[in-house]
Amino acid sequence: MTEAEGAATTRDAFLGGRITLHQPRVGYRAGIDPVLLAAAVPAKPGQSVLDLGCGVGAALYCLGARTPGLELHGLEIQPDYAALARRNGAENDLPAEIHLGDVAAPPPGLKARRFDHVFANPPYFEQGAATPAEEPGRRAGRHEATALALWVTQAAKRCAPRGTVTLIFRADRLEVLLGAMASRIGSLRILPIAPRAGRDARLILVQGQTGGRAPTRLHAPLILHQGESHQRDGESYRPEVSALLRDCAALPWPR
Amino acid sequence: MTEAEGAATTRDAFLGGRITLHQPRVGYRAGIDPVLLAAAVPAKPGQSVLDLGCGVGAALYCLGARTPGLELHGLEIQPDYAALARRNGAENDLPAEIHLGDVAAPPPGLKARRFDHVFANPPYFEQGAATPAEEPGRRAGRHEATALALWVTQAAKRCAPRGTVTLIFRADRLEVLLGAMASRIGSLRILPIAPRAGRDARLILVQGQTGGRAPTRLHAPLILHQGESHQRDGESYRPEVSALLRDCAALPWPR
Repeated sequence: MTEAEGAATTRDAFLGGRITLHQPRVGYRAGIDPVLLAAAVPAKPGQSVLDLGCGVGAALYCLGARTPGLELHGLEIQPDYAALARRNGAENDLPAEIHLGDVAAPPPGLKARRFDHVFANPPYFEQGAATPAEEPGRRAGRHEATALALWVTQAAKRCAPRGTVTLIFRADRLEVLLGAMASRIGSLRILPIAPRAGRDARLILVQGQTGGRAPTRLHAPLILHQGESHQRDGESYRPEVSALLRDCAALPWPR
Repeated sequence: MTEAEGAATTRDAFLGGRITLHQPRVGYRAGIDPVLLAAAVPAKPGQSVLDLGCGVGAALYCLGARTPGLELHGLEIQPDYAALARRNGAENDLPAEIHLGDVAAPPPGLKARRFDHVFANPPYFEQGAATPAEEPGRRAGRHEATALALWVTQAAKRCAPRGTVTLIFRADRLEVLLGAMASRIGSLRILPIAPRAGRDARLILVQGQTGGRAPTRLHAPLILHQGESHQRDGESYRPEVSALLRDCAALPWPR
């Protein structure tokens, strides 16, 4: 479902073809992470949502495709990704406002707003590495925990009082993400996502509320694939996972 | 398996009767947490181990009963618990050195030492609450994250270069524990412990190494009980859990 080789971008189908997205052939490309992220956001028609670091808009438009009548906003620091996000919104008939700017210092139009739901798939910051596209002078001291704290802080600030913050992240750095969330977002629910039953989780979905005071919940893992062996992932998704990835279902968070 | 009512302490069997422990009738009493903690420590005969906040020595002596020839050390701040820990060691023929002191400022004899394995079941610090038995003047500013950071820091300091640190904690505050561990202990392995398949985890076991650089692993949960309903816990443990709790087996950490 991609365009002819040689183009700088490909055009890929998501949610069983409900949306198609242009994305760069090289660099970050959306896989199942943004689809799972979008499935986890409990947005209702008429509400406003913000995707921090939206890239080409994969999570944003997956959510828009599932829930009609949302006010869609994305923040993206890289102009080429932001341009693709705008194009993707137009071509999928999902109008969105794509703000160009840094999560650490969002543009004034965004800073004045709060949203019913804020979500993000934060980049992976190696210890000591800088956020992408930052000026060199700020790079040195910007470490992983600090960078993630900026994302979490911004998510909390942009979230309306009774709204939700939802993040998806690599399980192999979960202690850094959860450490950043600990003092900023409460009523956490953590859903490990594992490729097979009995295996380590590869991803975690975390959802919480600014000012929430409920105890943290660590749910049973969401298992992606059936069976024990790992042969052809695309054909072995468990039915409830296929429903999320192809049939545009909402993630059934445990009660 | 407890003494006559009315006594200030009870005498309880652990590990299928391999050890019996005096513990206060009122206050913190050992359940399955210290037994699981001890099962998770990969100590080998001849090595030295330290239980931070050992209480009456439940985890310490469960580990000693499983692995012969360990050099057993415990640190306990409350004199009555420390006294019971000494008595329990003597009566179970598991000689141990019980140090009286605060995790935040251990006695000199302990500060001079490092151990092959350090483990703890840290108390639950409510936000804003103090550690037990602290002088009132220090209570005000001692919050949960700070308190847990002290435990984690001390565990890291007392651990020999190639040793392990193992902690068990309530899953409903796991973000605070993991946040405290994030910059202090590496190569983390996190094992959620859930009462039944599909249920939220109630506890987490976390093991790591000072200076470890391996990616964090979030394992599939250890399920305690068979079946869906929750009737008589004591009789429904899954066989591999019974092996830990009654037959003195080592926890089979995933490979």
